[in-house]
Amino acid sequence: MGFLYFLGTNFLLTFIASILCVCFAPTAAGPGIPEIKAYLNGVDTPNMYGATVLFVKIIGSIGAVSAGLDLGKEGPLVHIGSCIASLLGQGGPDNHRIKWKWVRYFNNDRDRRDLITCGASSGVCAAFRAPVGGVLFSLEEVASWWRSALLWRTFCSTAVVVVVLRAFIELCHEGKCGLFGEGGLIMFDVSNVAVSYNVMDIVPVAIIGIIGGVLGSLYNYLLHKILRVYNLINQKGKIYKLLLSLSVSIFTSACQYGLPFLVKCTPCDDLSMCPTNGKSGNYKQFNCPNGHYNDLATLLLTTNDDAVRNIFSTNTPHEYQPFSILIFFTLYCILGLITFGIAVPSGLFLPIILIGSGYGRLLGIIMRPYTNIDHGLLAVLGAASLMAGSMRMTVSLCVIFLELTNNLLLLPITMIVLLIAKTVGDSFNPSVYEMILHLKGLPFMDADPEPWMRNLSVGELIDVKSSVVSFRGIEKVSNIVDALKNTTHNGFPVMDDGDEVEIVKLHGVILRAHLIKVLKKKWFLKEKRRTEEWEVREKFSWVELAEREENIEDVIGVTKEEMEMFVDLHPLTNTTPFTVLESMSVAKARILFRQVGLRHMLVVPKYQASGVSPVIGILTRQDLLAYNILPVFPHLENSKGREKSN
Amino acid sequence: MGFLYFLGTNFLLTFIASILCVCFAPTAAGPGIPEIKAYLNGVDTPNMYGATVLFVKIIGSIGAVSAGLDLGKEGPLVHIGSCIASLLGQGGPDNHRIKWKWVRYFNNDRDRRDLITCGASSGVCAAFRAPVGGVLFSLEEVASWWRSALLWRTFCSTAVVVVVLRAFIELCHEGKCGLFGEGGLIMFDVSNVAVSYNVMDIVPVAIIGIIGGVLGSLYNYLLHKILRVYNLINQKGKIYKLLLSLSVSIFTSACQYGLPFLVKCTPCDDLSMCPTNGKSGNYKQFNCPNGHYNDLATLLLTTNDDAVRNIFSTNTPHEYQPFSILIFFTLYCILGLITFGIAVPSGLFLPIILIGSGYGRLLGIIMRPYTNIDHGLLAVLGAASLMAGSMRMTVSLCVIFLELTNNLLLLPITMIVLLIAKTVGDSFNPSVYEMILHLKGLPFMDADPEPWMRNLSVGELIDVKSSVVSFRGIEKVSNIVDALKNTTHNGFPVMDDGDEVEIVKLHGVILRAHLIKVLKKKWFLKEKRRTEEWEVREKFSWVELAEREENIEDVIGVTKEEMEMFVDLHPLTNTTPFTVLESMSVAKARILFRQVGLRHMLVVPKYQASGVSPVIGILTRQDLLAYNILPVFPHLENSKGREKSN
Repeated sequence: MGFLYFLGTNFLLTFIASILCVCFAPTAAGPGIPEIKAYLNGVDTPNMYGATVLFVKIIGSIGAVSAGLDLGKEGPLVHIGSCIASLLGQGGPDNHRIKWKWVRYFNNDRDRRDLITCGASSGVCAAFRAPVGGVLFSLEEVASWWRSALLWRTFCSTAVVVVVLRAFIELCHEGKCGLFGEGGLIMFDVSNVAVSYNVMDIVPVAIIGIIGGVLGSLYNYLLHKILRVYNLINQKGKIYKLLLSLSVSIFTSACQYGLPFLVKCTPCDDLSMCPTNGKSGNYKQFNCPNGHYNDLATLLLTTNDDAVRNIFSTNTPHEYQPFSILIFFTLYCILGLITFGIAVPSGLFLPIILIGSGYGRLLGIIMRPYTNIDHGLLAVLGAASLMAGSMRMTVSLCVIFLELTNNLLLLPITMIVLLIAKTVGDSFNPSVYEMILHLKGLPFMDADPEPWMRNLSVGELIDVKSSVVSFRGIEKVSNIVDALKNTTHNGFPVMDDGDEVEIVKLHGVILRAHLIKVLKKKWFLKEKRRTEEWEVREKFSWVELAEREENIEDVIGVTKEEMEMFVDLHPLTNTTPFTVLESMSVAKARILFRQVGLRHMLVVPKYQASGVSPVIGILTRQDLLAYNILPVFPHLENSKGREKSN
Repeated sequence: MGFLYFLGTNFLLTFIASILCVCFAPTAAGPGIPEIKAYLNGVDTPNMYGATVLFVKIIGSIGAVSAGLDLGKEGPLVHIGSCIASLLGQGGPDNHRIKWKWVRYFNNDRDRRDLITCGASSGVCAAFRAPVGGVLFSLEEVASWWRSALLWRTFCSTAVVVVVLRAFIELCHEGKCGLFGEGGLIMFDVSNVAVSYNVMDIVPVAIIGIIGGVLGSLYNYLLHKILRVYNLINQKGKIYKLLLSLSVSIFTSACQYGLPFLVKCTPCDDLSMCPTNGKSGNYKQFNCPNGHYNDLATLLLTTNDDAVRNIFSTNTPHEYQPFSILIFFTLYCILGLITFGIAVPSGLFLPIILIGSGYGRLLGIIMRPYTNIDHGLLAVLGAASLMAGSMRMTVSLCVIFLELTNNLLLLPITMIVLLIAKTVGDSFNPSVYEMILHLKGLPFMDADPEPWMRNLSVGELIDVKSSVVSFRGIEKVSNIVDALKNTTHNGFPVMDDGDEVEIVKLHGVILRAHLIKVLKKKWFLKEKRRTEEWEVREKFSWVELAEREENIEDVIGVTKEEMEMFVDLHPLTNTTPFTVLESMSVAKARILFRQVGLRHMLVVPKYQASGVSPVIGILTRQDLLAYNILPVFPHLENSKGREKSN
């Protein structure tokens, strides 16, 4: 009866979370962190930051977490933070934007990126109550460009989050708001144990780090396989997505309820706090007689947060039987792999912490004769090592764990564990977020170019592309319409014939969006003439020009007469495009592209003579990605780079 | 008698520190952080990272700190860390380099920068025993470019530092090594006090932040004035430098010894730990009868570290009389201003912490009726606020203070204080390091260009420069010698006439250092011909080519016949220089220059025609600095930037 009740509730909650994600906002499924990472790198995923997504993510995340699924709330909170930041920045949802003047100041790429970064740090801060950890997470994992100003802006936003959190915790003390606020600002406090270690403890610490690295990369590898299978299932239709989520939910509930029956009850040491029944805490009674507790139920039949708190519990070396921890570890390995890909908002942090703390505690039991480090602390180290082994972060994880556990003396050991696990993991495969980015096909651009890119010049890259379409400064409408319809380019070079013959002048680059704006507004001229600045100002506000999404299909009703008219492109052209010489290596061009944050880069000839076009090509992000270049130049793959040049 | 002994020892120690700095390594005076910051920005200060500097800095810093001067060891430790990193990277001191193969891998700008960044973080880590704080300090204050790889490298180096520190502390426990290791890994532990605050405590916290910001910027302002006066004195000669240091030392000693006589003795509360005599600790007896202590002597007649520990002491609201704290605060304000510029290795952190903790504690006494926050914690907050008010860091200070004091619950308040103080300070003047950079005349390049730079094109900038000197691919020796003697340029464009007439090809940029190498080795050709790759390889190793410092004066004995011979510049030319169009705005050119970390940038014409030179100019760091542009284009200063364009 109890089982049915448990199963039913979880099933219903999963159903709500999943149906919302499937029907209203497919982008709300998963953690959202890879997409945010890609956005901050310059790749926009459609429908990521809307009001619907925000709503679905909030409700869905509440549903999924309370359904007892093996997933965390930190990934969704990061996404929620970014959605709120984005909505605030654009003054509300797409259809009901507030047109206040100050909102317009955020209407450029850089400020939008800054806001979304702040939102992401606030999300981590809210999830772990770790303000500095949140800032560092954004810096190390999410953001691609980083400025000193952004550092203190994110710091400011997490400071506000922590003050608000603290105020709510003060309001909610003594359990008035359910489980909220438990643990105060420190979620998994392990500061009550004296950390004592000596030189020889480096061995168990190193072992934890190495195992964490190996397990973390193995986790990434298996998750990759499972996500590919899930992708195939999910593509079959909405009903399959839903069924997948619900079967995972049923499996989870069955295991969580059924497995504790396998273990023996343990007698309590201290009857004042053991067993607990009907409230959250350590030492669950479950099916045991009075004065006894079921250690596996303590870990499984509780919220994920409480499970972490219980397995991190210090000064309790004999609380858990090795067999129970082994079941716990195996179960969460399986759940962690099969839960992540289902169509509900899900975070990766908590599942990995659960697996890691499991084997950390297990190692503690095995190594009991050799080390004095507390088992709770070993569970913390295990969690940290698996995080580093899978996500490959160091500084931010270190600070997040410090803020989670409030044990500064553990810091040196944590640092060593993180570094070892990251190094071991890196020797096997890329980090879990990079893997997901690749699976989703997002053209993410790393900071460092591949070594073989030094052996290829941008000129060679341009040679194999279709030739560039360029406009004259004052161009015929029909030419523009043709170019927009027949190509998918987003930027076109604009060139002028000079006053004398045989001189060609490069004027700049014009964006597809601006050309479509011109066609939509029918800003055509009867004769070939240069326009004045006020004519443009009158026609186009700069808010309009900052908008990007436009479609050539929306342009209708350009008559035949209009087709023969002219457009003066000069005032709408970006006259200061970034350029590279054709002899430039792809590696250095990529550094420019990525460091300055470009969308288009013009390639100019190294020859100066009449008859040579001032632009020989235009490069975009796609042209500079390794997996687009290698099929065309397969011989490069194994070539080593030339010597470094500065 | 005691006074003379005290004075004499301090005088002697200051004399040693100062005479070393004055005679052997003037660059070892001061903190060294601004120069390291400039180096990582691309500005090399000569004689900063040699073995002599390292030696003088170590001995000098020990002398200056033990002389009781009001200065810290963290700035010098940062410099020491960077020196060691630099020496390791180049394989030893200039004259006795180890020529191992692996050392050569570090022989490029980027790896040298990385090593020096690691050294700087290790220095902060060693000074404050704050591994994460050290990493963040490098990130926020010192480094100009930051990559994810650098983040975990610095993290790794601070992890090693903390493990070594911890091992030494274990070896040195129970006072075997004097004061070393006191406090364990946490220097100023205040975790023994329960942090309790409510919503209304935001008012005193905000007051501390505002005062910190105002005082911090005032400190910067006064320090600027005093450093200018000191510069005048120091320029007069070595003897004046020495005299200045010694008079500051005498003044410091006299005040530290004499002032405690002004205050009344206080009776002890707890006779088991009060008064202390003959050992370090709180409650100094000094001139008081048994069972009494002198509170000002507790703060003044001790090491700076202990002074901080004593003023941060928690649960001791009545230890200090307001009058003593006032004297302490005033004295350290004066000392902090007059000590910094003298010719000894000196850090800024500790003087500022001392001033800040003084007024924090004073505020605690004033606000006693209104807040429950412990006075020790208020001293910590005061120190944090003055640091933020003067240095304008946020995240790194927050983590450093967390690691210094081990009180995680104080974190939210610290964050608010830091943000308020930084904001207030920023509204008055730039940070103290920026001010010192400016005083030293180092051409530091900020991340953000000035708004008026959008209104100037690089073409206009080139027009007012002397015309560019360029070479042909195969150039006469006499032309090269002339160009090197008559200009100070460090890079020259190399151009080739094409196969047909009227085609000019831009080949690349050649460095002055490489040209001098060619002249020194007399790699001349009798006839105009292209050389083969192996000829160059035979003559020049790439280790030689990576060396930068060369002087045209060293080239002697080029005969008249040789002057008529030729050099093939092609193989030594960098064929992939970064270029900008002449229509590019200075603001965007600067972003490229700074983000990619360039030394030269070629300006190419926007016209394509025969007879136009493919390079119209070459821009360097100096050309792009605001204070070099404004005198030539004075009308720009007050012009607002055009609209932002991406």
